[in-house]
Amino acid sequence: MTLRTMEVAPWEVRSSELNPQHKRLVESLTSLGNGYMGMRGNFEEYYSGDSHLGTYVAGVWFPDKTRVGWWKNGYPKYFGKAINNLNFAKVDIYVDGQRVDLYTNQVSDFHLSLDMQHGILTRTFTVFGVKFTVKRFISLAVSELAAFAWEVVSVDGKEHQVQITSYLDANVKNEDANYEEKFWQVLDTQVSEQSSSLSMQTVPNPFGIEQFIVHAQQTFAGNFSAQASAASDLEVSNTFVATVEANKPAYFEKFVVLTTSRDYADLAAVQQGATKIAQTLAGQSFSDLYAAHAAKWEQRWHLADVQITGDNDTAIESQQGIRFNLFHLFSTYYGEDARLNIGPKGFTGEKYGGATYWDTEAYAVPLYLALAKPEVTRNLLVYRRQQLAQAQHNARQQGLDGALYPMVTFNGIECHNEWEITFEEIHRNGAIAYAIYNYTNYTGDTSYLATKGLEVLVEIARFWASRVHYNPRVDKYMIHGVTGPNEYENNINNNWYTNTIAAWVLEYTAQSLAQFPRPDLNVSEQELAKWHDIVNKMYYPYEPELQVFVQHDGFMDKDLRPVRALSKDDLPLNQKWSWDKILRSPFIKQADVLQGLYFFGDRFDQATKLRNFDFYEPMTVHESSLSPCIHSILAAELNKEDKAVEMYLRTSRLDLDNYNNDTEDGLHITSMSGSWLAIVQGFAQMKTWNDKLSFAPRLPHIWRGYAFHINYRGRLIKVSVNAQQVSLALLEGQALTLSVYGQELTLEQQLTVPFGG
Amino acid sequence: MTLRTMEVAPWEVRSSELNPQHKRLVESLTSLGNGYMGMRGNFEEYYSGDSHLGTYVAGVWFPDKTRVGWWKNGYPKYFGKAINNLNFAKVDIYVDGQRVDLYTNQVSDFHLSLDMQHGILTRTFTVFGVKFTVKRFISLAVSELAAFAWEVVSVDGKEHQVQITSYLDANVKNEDANYEEKFWQVLDTQVSEQSSSLSMQTVPNPFGIEQFIVHAQQTFAGNFSAQASAASDLEVSNTFVATVEANKPAYFEKFVVLTTSRDYADLAAVQQGATKIAQTLAGQSFSDLYAAHAAKWEQRWHLADVQITGDNDTAIESQQGIRFNLFHLFSTYYGEDARLNIGPKGFTGEKYGGATYWDTEAYAVPLYLALAKPEVTRNLLVYRRQQLAQAQHNARQQGLDGALYPMVTFNGIECHNEWEITFEEIHRNGAIAYAIYNYTNYTGDTSYLATKGLEVLVEIARFWASRVHYNPRVDKYMIHGVTGPNEYENNINNNWYTNTIAAWVLEYTAQSLAQFPRPDLNVSEQELAKWHDIVNKMYYPYEPELQVFVQHDGFMDKDLRPVRALSKDDLPLNQKWSWDKILRSPFIKQADVLQGLYFFGDRFDQATKLRNFDFYEPMTVHESSLSPCIHSILAAELNKEDKAVEMYLRTSRLDLDNYNNDTEDGLHITSMSGSWLAIVQGFAQMKTWNDKLSFAPRLPHIWRGYAFHINYRGRLIKVSVNAQQVSLALLEGQALTLSVYGQELTLEQQLTVPFGG
Repeated sequence: MTLRTMEVAPWEVRSSELNPQHKRLVESLTSLGNGYMGMRGNFEEYYSGDSHLGTYVAGVWFPDKTRVGWWKNGYPKYFGKAINNLNFAKVDIYVDGQRVDLYTNQVSDFHLSLDMQHGILTRTFTVFGVKFTVKRFISLAVSELAAFAWEVVSVDGKEHQVQITSYLDANVKNEDANYEEKFWQVLDTQVSEQSSSLSMQTVPNPFGIEQFIVHAQQTFAGNFSAQASAASDLEVSNTFVATVEANKPAYFEKFVVLTTSRDYADLAAVQQGATKIAQTLAGQSFSDLYAAHAAKWEQRWHLADVQITGDNDTAIESQQGIRFNLFHLFSTYYGEDARLNIGPKGFTGEKYGGATYWDTEAYAVPLYLALAKPEVTRNLLVYRRQQLAQAQHNARQQGLDGALYPMVTFNGIECHNEWEITFEEIHRNGAIAYAIYNYTNYTGDTSYLATKGLEVLVEIARFWASRVHYNPRVDKYMIHGVTGPNEYENNINNNWYTNTIAAWVLEYTAQSLAQFPRPDLNVSEQELAKWHDIVNKMYYPYEPELQVFVQHDGFMDKDLRPVRALSKDDLPLNQKWSWDKILRSPFIKQADVLQGLYFFGDRFDQATKLRNFDFYEPMTVHESSLSPCIHSILAAELNKEDKAVEMYLRTSRLDLDNYNNDTEDGLHITSMSGSWLAIVQGFAQMKTWNDKLSFAPRLPHIWRGYAFHINYRGRLIKVSVNAQQVSLALLEGQALTLSVYGQELTLEQQLTVPFGG
Repeated sequence: MTLRTMEVAPWEVRSSELNPQHKRLVESLTSLGNGYMGMRGNFEEYYSGDSHLGTYVAGVWFPDKTRVGWWKNGYPKYFGKAINNLNFAKVDIYVDGQRVDLYTNQVSDFHLSLDMQHGILTRTFTVFGVKFTVKRFISLAVSELAAFAWEVVSVDGKEHQVQITSYLDANVKNEDANYEEKFWQVLDTQVSEQSSSLSMQTVPNPFGIEQFIVHAQQTFAGNFSAQASAASDLEVSNTFVATVEANKPAYFEKFVVLTTSRDYADLAAVQQGATKIAQTLAGQSFSDLYAAHAAKWEQRWHLADVQITGDNDTAIESQQGIRFNLFHLFSTYYGEDARLNIGPKGFTGEKYGGATYWDTEAYAVPLYLALAKPEVTRNLLVYRRQQLAQAQHNARQQGLDGALYPMVTFNGIECHNEWEITFEEIHRNGAIAYAIYNYTNYTGDTSYLATKGLEVLVEIARFWASRVHYNPRVDKYMIHGVTGPNEYENNINNNWYTNTIAAWVLEYTAQSLAQFPRPDLNVSEQELAKWHDIVNKMYYPYEPELQVFVQHDGFMDKDLRPVRALSKDDLPLNQKWSWDKILRSPFIKQADVLQGLYFFGDRFDQATKLRNFDFYEPMTVHESSLSPCIHSILAAELNKEDKAVEMYLRTSRLDLDNYNNDTEDGLHITSMSGSWLAIVQGFAQMKTWNDKLSFAPRLPHIWRGYAFHINYRGRLIKVSVNAQQVSLALLEGQALTLSVYGQELTLEQQLTVPFGG
């Protein structure tokens, strides 16, 4: 059940329909962000229909008291909530005294377009004989800046009075707040004829979490005349008027500068910080500021763009899909601030809460490694290093050694409050370590590993060494009581994936310590010996007859059936079945054993991968947005083109076509990397194991060709694939030895091999 | 860590200490109830110290919205809360204008005594030169009646003015309400010079649950003079005064009649009902009403008393303990109303919520069978039959056939909101069936089984038949995803106890259907054949080397250790360890495999019981109040006297000595049956399997002797045991063949065999 609300275009997300039923969905799709702040595609002016107002500032959150389960020791005391920030886009527009409200007005000439190449949202509409063209962007050049511009012109030959009141509105709530909580109190308001400002702070909490101060100020340009200004308890406003005639447009520009206590010490400093930034921007018009912003987007695309060509709709749909995903990923995170991470909804919604999931390390890190400078990814690793003390706290909460990185967090302290996840989905602690390996192996830069990296690895290794237990009956180490990546199983024993990544962590940490000795970390010979013993005697469930790894103990005892044996009415399981039935069924939410075969692909041969893929994929319902990409990558490797394409299409346009029927709540930011992984690691079979770059491109039948950029060890490489040939162009950096279809080649400027090798 | 606040006495719970630190604990211990309503041992008059005010009316509750987990299909929409009712005991007392408040006043001559033989609570204290003697009871003779009496006398030779204002106060809240909810709205108040009344109703709820109306009215007697009356939004009151002198006591009596919409159609009927009852009581003094009440208690004890003799403190402690437990059980439930059940806290607290747990069937039914007329127990069964439709609903919520009785409920709809319990602790559905067997086998009355009983059994059998799955790899039926009685394991597979009771239900239902054909229940030959197949091919985990039943799949893979290997600091686990650590440990909360050996004791030989006891008991922490009794019974059977005594002492005085450090929240009502079971089924080894009554009494070294009453198939038998002999006296009913120490005997009036047979 997909729903496509926007037209298909290579660089645009656009629509000429104004359908109140799809308002929330379209708002999600047309969100804007710059890593520092962002907002959903809400209309600036009053809209009386259903809408999900959302403005978010990265790293500004609230700890919401845990209401259940706290009677079990080790439970988090609060759940970190991404909170709705002040509505700084808000305006109220009157034409000849009539309020503009696209829900009730007679509207013509409506167009909405998000230009992904330059990061600008444009909207036109005509009401009461007046045509409005509204543009906005959240600046990549000046993080604290959001800019808005209205062009207003009469189109009915008459003269019209247009009044615009521009607000900073602190009267906001979270949609997902169970108890209608208010998270904000206003500290200060200031108004003058030509500007106004509002400072607010999160309400007190009993958990010692910072009460964030957010300050915003608005200034204006254009040819409207200032008429009034006002301040009330929760908002400030400035009102402007203009008379518009045919062919004589009036212009109104609004600039918002937003600063927070994350960057400044106190209220005064937060306010001064904003004023200083506003001063540097003074005199620049909307188009000046936009030019600087657009140039930054062009730089990003220069490093990262993917092009897809073809003869049919699928190609252009794919083209739009991959750019849409990269656009929103980059809008959410581009590594500027190592205190931030990649939230599950970015700036497009508030569901799930928390800012950081293992999705970052498992799915986003490989993408950022290839599409941005190494520093961007390195900051994601530094983020975890900065939260090491909190991860140690999390482990102690469970009575365990070392460090346990959280399932969900803002500040490093676990805040997820379901025991089967919090206490049990500990494989996440492997992915954090894997990202260190991934960064080191991809970039060739061992300096992070040798310093901060090992500090994190040793503590994760210590966690695993205390979390396993020895079973003398079979002379093996086991890991009981876990939830694997397949969250449709809870509290299972010996999840193959978890056991695999746990042993790998111990092995990699020991190797790395040998390579980069760190006596300061106090890893004794005895401790190392214990790690080796665990690695050597780890138990891996295996089914000898079918020769497959067993997802976990007892899995083979289930009523094993393929998804195709189900009725259509049973799907999706998470909406149609009781949790009891889901848990007992053999059906798999997302790659589990296969996630291990993906992470450690160099350790398993094709036959092993094939047997496991053929055993598990038919039982997989892909009800996690993180599932299809891993399956697409493996299917491509195993030359299962149809399956690879099916899975790719599901990940590529998940939000654009509203596959999961929940995009209205916000975009699936962290899983957006999946479509890129499916193209580059899947169709192009890019591998980077053991310091070697290699490709073995496939060409899915839905396309004529595709091309993408890779940043690898100081080079920028463009890879182009079509049915005739695979071309590699070295756009930046020095010559490089790599392999294409198993053939070792040196890329100097350009090289071309026949398609298929 | 025990805490004994009350003196040891055979029929009394008394203290002369007024320690504010133990106020809540003492309030729990001195609760009163009559099955219809009850209250904690709160002081009637104002008390400014810490106290847990609690007045409860059976079957009056409120559905509290589920705040977590509802996103999983099949979750209950609300949690049923036992709510605090209007405070009808409340008075305010002034002596010469000084307010009586035992928290701040200079108090002398304080005594508090609960007379368990007659169900009356007496308190004396002297303040401001005046001695008060306060008595109260909740009537067994007239369920709707609570009566209070004050005797006030000057003890300092002076004359004093005493003023008593008596309230009905609807301004009450639940202590455990997360959000400070108010559950009540007042509908009507009426006051006259000599009486007043208040009618209130639970606030609206969105779940279609009845808004209960509760009405109370107070009238007075004695030689105080009426002075004033008043009504406000939430309370009504009457004020009385008297002048007291030395040796000329003044008397004040307060009678409360409370009726509810559970028994009357609407507000007018509820009010008229109370008025009618009050009219029948008019003219009777406190002592008249008390006499009728006390006679009822004496009748109950006549059927049920247990006597323990000995040379040391333990004997009298045991004596008090068993009577205390029986007193509170009978105060909670005596079978008068088949719409009610035995709540976990009775009328002594509000924790846990819900009214009905499987505790009733597993622990309370055998006690009521022996200590009361069969109708009392039969009403517990009828209760479940009346909720069959709701149990079918619960099963459908999980996508299963038949009926699933709830873990916690008021109205039959499951309201527990942790998936690992709600969805998984389904062994409860076996205990419901087992109680039908138990009733039938104990009483010899097959009429319930043949009618209502089979209607319940068939639906429970259908549940199990749809809940198992067939595993073709081993040609066995399995039950995955359960939580056994040992709640320190969640979501396990093939819990031996659950599999055992499930197969037993199918077997017993099929047998009963054969004996009492019920074509109206539409059990087809095919369905019966399926049940037989499941019974024949049920999988029971077994460890051949140790020859023990395995608690569940994978249990033997744990780091198996005895509790004695733990440090004292680790205990109790549920307070010291994280939930993660508890789940992964081998430690057992309460009898699990052993619960099965207890229920089906006739199917297993002593050697089997011994091997399993010796394997599991050392790993058991007994952190459920339901655990020690089962272990005591089995230990007695296996001649492990020390263990039997240790376990008995733990169950007998659990609340009196505050073993679990939580008695301040209320008494452990449902587990109170455990001490009786330990004496009768344990020390006396009473068995009733297969229509035969037998005894094989042991005598624990802590006692010189013990005696108890048994109602069995129309007889009242007194069994007395001492080191010389076992005597059986037939107090009522016809001669009976029974067995003592394996010897078949006929009991006509009295028979005696040497101790030990």
